[in-house]
Amino acid sequence: MSEDGERGDNGRVPRKQAAPRRKLLMSEILEQATQLFAERGYDGTTLQDVADAVGLSRPNLYNYVRSKEELLVAMVEATSQEAASSLRAMRQRADLDPTQKLRALVRELVLQRANNPAQFRTLDRSEQALPSDIAERHLDSRRAVLREITGVLDEGIVAGLFRPLDSRVTALSIIGMCNWVAWWFHPAPAHPAEPVAEQIAADAVAMVVQVDKRRPSAPTPLGAVALLQQDLDYLARLLRVED
Amino acid sequence: MSEDGERGDNGRVPRKQAAPRRKLLMSEILEQATQLFAERGYDGTTLQDVADAVGLSRPNLYNYVRSKEELLVAMVEATSQEAASSLRAMRQRADLDPTQKLRALVRELVLQRANNPAQFRTLDRSEQALPSDIAERHLDSRRAVLREITGVLDEGIVAGLFRPLDSRVTALSIIGMCNWVAWWFHPAPAHPAEPVAEQIAADAVAMVVQVDKRRPSAPTPLGAVALLQQDLDYLARLLRVED
Repeated sequence: MSEDGERGDNGRVPRKQAAPRRKLLMSEILEQATQLFAERGYDGTTLQDVADAVGLSRPNLYNYVRSKEELLVAMVEATSQEAASSLRAMRQRADLDPTQKLRALVRELVLQRANNPAQFRTLDRSEQALPSDIAERHLDSRRAVLREITGVLDEGIVAGLFRPLDSRVTALSIIGMCNWVAWWFHPAPAHPAEPVAEQIAADAVAMVVQVDKRRPSAPTPLGAVALLQQDLDYLARLLRVED
Repeated sequence: MSEDGERGDNGRVPRKQAAPRRKLLMSEILEQATQLFAERGYDGTTLQDVADAVGLSRPNLYNYVRSKEELLVAMVEATSQEAASSLRAMRQRADLDPTQKLRALVRELVLQRANNPAQFRTLDRSEQALPSDIAERHLDSRRAVLREITGVLDEGIVAGLFRPLDSRVTALSIIGMCNWVAWWFHPAPAHPAEPVAEQIAADAVAMVVQVDKRRPSAPTPLGAVALLQQDLDYLARLLRVED
């Protein structure tokens, strides 16, 4: 690949290499750092430990991460900030109604947690070790996720598609369902995350959807007549039981 | 109170004092220990720190807790074991149907998390510091909670009251909704936990309940006639729109 030709004489990977390769190595660095933080704690881990685990020289690692703090920043970016920005993008899609949006948001959040469970939990555990500016970014992203989900619930309630519920409490419950995946789901080829994400998304929709209004499948006189037919059958059955 | 008269000359509180008072002081000890573990870490906290925070002499504290490990055991008992045993008791109640049971289980779990959020999170963060026998007890209790909730979902599905869902994934989602309360709820006189517990319980029931069958509120001919009346109103509205 062309970026190999750009390698300097000192053997360092230049900063301007192709984005996909950089992203891949960065994700490996984060994964190893997460593992080390979990085993030895944040304070008990050095950048040299991270370089050794990834199999990079320390000067080489410096091309990606210059301090332990930067590792935390990268974790915040990869977990809470990425979640917030992809949820924001989905919420703005004009082609989806609130039900479809909620399903998409939950699916996305579950997949993010299922694919990086250790990172999410390590970040959660290190919250008190985060420098205040990074903690602020992390909190901002968490608030953004809450805002997007609360917003979709409010849209659905106004449209009469969702029950008139307390959207904040329900949004926090939905976030809890998604985040908890990091505690119990172990990604493996035999256990793909997609079916789990699909079911949790369907459960979240079922939780909020308006069913009291007994809408027929089609809002037409024929649809209403179909409802009448069902209910007459039901009445007849009840009267037969009473006889 | 009579137990004051039993105080020994050395000023120690005797082990056989009345249970409510012992329980109250034990809960204060756990609360202070939780705070200290959160601030200084498990390793950075001594029993003397705990005694100082509670305002007990160290020999007096020894009547309640003999080691830091015992504090972890008490936390496991107060969080995961208490949750497991109260859920087990509710699940066995013959006077409740699966819907009522699910509502009661979720309500109970939310209240436990809402009333001891710091303790639950500290325990979660200290999981890797738990000695293996205590970790085993903790895991057993978590499994028991999962078993009770999965069991109620299975009962409801068999009875035709709940949708035919993957009861394990949905039970884990419900546990996530409840546990996450420890991350966002801050108990205060102005923010009582009960309304939050009620809403999360109602949300959990809504998530699983079977609605396709359009059951009337009462399975009587009058209930069926009420459904018919709704259908006629709906048909009339549709026809007016078409005119």
